[in-house]
Amino acid sequence: MLIVQKYGGSSVGNPERIKNVARRIIETKRAGNDVVVVVSAMGDTTDDLITLADQITDDPSEREMDMLLSTGEQISIALLAMAIQTMGEEAISFTGAQVGIMTDSIHSKAKIVDVKGSGKMRAELKKGKIVIVAGFQGIDKDFNITTLGRGGSDTTAVALAAALKADECEIFTDVDGVYTTDPRIVSEATKLDVIAYDEMLEMASLGAKVMHSRSIEMAKKYGVVIHVRSSFNKVKGTLIQEEDAQMENIVVRGVALNKDEAKITISRVPDRPGIAAKIFKMIAEGNVNIDMIIQNVSEKGFTDISFTVLKEELKKARKVLDRIAADVGASGVTYGDNMAKVSIVGVGMRSHTGIASAMFEALASKGINIEMISTSEIKVSCVIDSKDAEKAVKAIHDKFKLGGKKVMKEKISAAK
Amino acid sequence: MLIVQKYGGSSVGNPERIKNVARRIIETKRAGNDVVVVVSAMGDTTDDLITLADQITDDPSEREMDMLLSTGEQISIALLAMAIQTMGEEAISFTGAQVGIMTDSIHSKAKIVDVKGSGKMRAELKKGKIVIVAGFQGIDKDFNITTLGRGGSDTTAVALAAALKADECEIFTDVDGVYTTDPRIVSEATKLDVIAYDEMLEMASLGAKVMHSRSIEMAKKYGVVIHVRSSFNKVKGTLIQEEDAQMENIVVRGVALNKDEAKITISRVPDRPGIAAKIFKMIAEGNVNIDMIIQNVSEKGFTDISFTVLKEELKKARKVLDRIAADVGASGVTYGDNMAKVSIVGVGMRSHTGIASAMFEALASKGINIEMISTSEIKVSCVIDSKDAEKAVKAIHDKFKLGGKKVMKEKISAAK
Repeated sequence: MLIVQKYGGSSVGNPERIKNVARRIIETKRAGNDVVVVVSAMGDTTDDLITLADQITDDPSEREMDMLLSTGEQISIALLAMAIQTMGEEAISFTGAQVGIMTDSIHSKAKIVDVKGSGKMRAELKKGKIVIVAGFQGIDKDFNITTLGRGGSDTTAVALAAALKADECEIFTDVDGVYTTDPRIVSEATKLDVIAYDEMLEMASLGAKVMHSRSIEMAKKYGVVIHVRSSFNKVKGTLIQEEDAQMENIVVRGVALNKDEAKITISRVPDRPGIAAKIFKMIAEGNVNIDMIIQNVSEKGFTDISFTVLKEELKKARKVLDRIAADVGASGVTYGDNMAKVSIVGVGMRSHTGIASAMFEALASKGINIEMISTSEIKVSCVIDSKDAEKAVKAIHDKFKLGGKKVMKEKISAAK
Repeated sequence: MLIVQKYGGSSVGNPERIKNVARRIIETKRAGNDVVVVVSAMGDTTDDLITLADQITDDPSEREMDMLLSTGEQISIALLAMAIQTMGEEAISFTGAQVGIMTDSIHSKAKIVDVKGSGKMRAELKKGKIVIVAGFQGIDKDFNITTLGRGGSDTTAVALAAALKADECEIFTDVDGVYTTDPRIVSEATKLDVIAYDEMLEMASLGAKVMHSRSIEMAKKYGVVIHVRSSFNKVKGTLIQEEDAQMENIVVRGVALNKDEAKITISRVPDRPGIAAKIFKMIAEGNVNIDMIIQNVSEKGFTDISFTVLKEELKKARKVLDRIAADVGASGVTYGDNMAKVSIVGVGMRSHTGIASAMFEALASKGINIEMISTSEIKVSCVIDSKDAEKAVKAIHDKFKLGGKKVMKEKISAAK
């Protein structure tokens, strides 16, 4: 099998951990596999480099910042190659540039457009070498070094797995996999054996921080099966893959929570065509990111428009909103900054009915008031007061019977 | 003018110094010049990276070591570019790979074979940008990252100056230039305005540590005039250039001292053809570097063979020499490990006579015994007891009237 493995910054945080990672890679190799490894920068390296830049300037150019930060992964790959070599296996490290990870030219958040070095990597694998590639980085068509932004190393791993048509893409992280909900909130949360790309994308965008959306989008596009698992144990993790017929039997895959929401309502807006477009164009010009939008007719000829933003965007939003309200002739703006969004996600919703109402019932049974509702094909989200957030997640998790025995089973098999 | 400037690791040792270097570069640019800058890694960076590698393995592969160490210069160029940009000039940084510094594949001491990115650098200069290039590094034909070994950044600067046909190649260092001898030994030592490539090569190989031989060889090959000067002041330094007729008027340019010599004598070697060849082949196989060799007939049919090695090589030499002496039927081996080599260098020797004897007189006048003598077209070296080393240098420096007024003059002009 050809396996792509990705290890994050904390997995290679110091020389001792690098050696541990090397041992794990060698095990995979000696089990008869070809192995391509993607690594991030060592724990604090990136922060140290940013501190250096801060001492030079408040406003570094993004091109030079990418030049600077890309050294972090270059250090990791060299050290990891040395560690593997010293343990008796052959290894060779490559920067993003050296294996032709071509990106666009948007420094600090570049997108991979092509991987040109598949032949080169295959040639090294054929010689029996473990191939180690710097994550998070690439080059544009003019050979400028670029970085891929948040979750960049995951994206590198998926892109390599796609280019090499790898059999597996293992993402090693500090959790055992993707859970039905945050285990810190609901102790019965169960690790999922499998989750569909679309479900994972909703979970990721709703606040489950295991993987960044971009890498999942790429995996979906190229049909790369991702195996998210822990770098600290050998327990099987979660497969992120194309949905199949069987997946639809489970209507709710997981419950996601985002506690940092704020709700904004513009009241008594004159109700005429194009008014919402005007309002949200002005908000966008203020560089505020909107999440959910709800519009209700309040009395004849007028409407209330509510929407949510991340709490950290609220300040920016306030700056533009009073002016906007006056501009469109609204009566005023109200802000609620202690909101949470709780969501259920599952591709089974497409073929099952009564899911949303079951969720509302779960909330009602605990006396939790719903402020806003938004739905998509595979998701239902409710905005509630953030003081009720944990209670809501527990109630919904219970209602859909997501927790329980499964965790027990796995603990036993891990102990074997 | 097109000027190539090189700043060493101590000149860019911390963010404050990087800013100072940026100011100096901007001055050169604003005086109407195009500027290409070569920088080394920041002060301790290389040591820190080596420490990391040491924690992984005792015996790192040289390819991976080059991958690791080349990040040091990449950090410097990014930070220097940021510093220049924040002071209001445009700048762009490039790794060795990005400006096509092509080398052979001898990792850790690669030789530059070509510079392919002249067009790219010229295009950036034309846009008004200051071009910053990572010293010490290149790539081989398979895009492996290589490093150039000791003095590597100087070599990068000279190679770029040659490729770009620069008008000047300034090497900024922590001394004011090249002196007639080490000013710590002879306080009257004078800074030279000019020195010929061949003289500098002899001085460098004889222990004057301002510049590494390889960069001077390359400058000679391509006719690049090097200006060695201090990064801490604006005093004109020393030009290293092709010799001209006028240079021959000065018979002795400088006095060099190497205190770490050891003398080895193999006594009463049977004197037959091929015996020296046999001995030195065996020594070479023991990986011992030989400096001077003297052979004298001692009595009919026998010869004494003496040679010098660096003191640090003595241990290695002892390992092989007793066996060699027995092998060739010599009577024994003696070691003198407190030797010094003092040398005079000057292209004027080619056209002047009596230089060597004047040197011997200077030593005799102080009662210093000469153990070995070796001469080349532009050099005379004497091996003496190392306890007499400083006294010898002073006497010779005096004899050829190398010190004196000039230093005074420059101190005054620097003070103006």
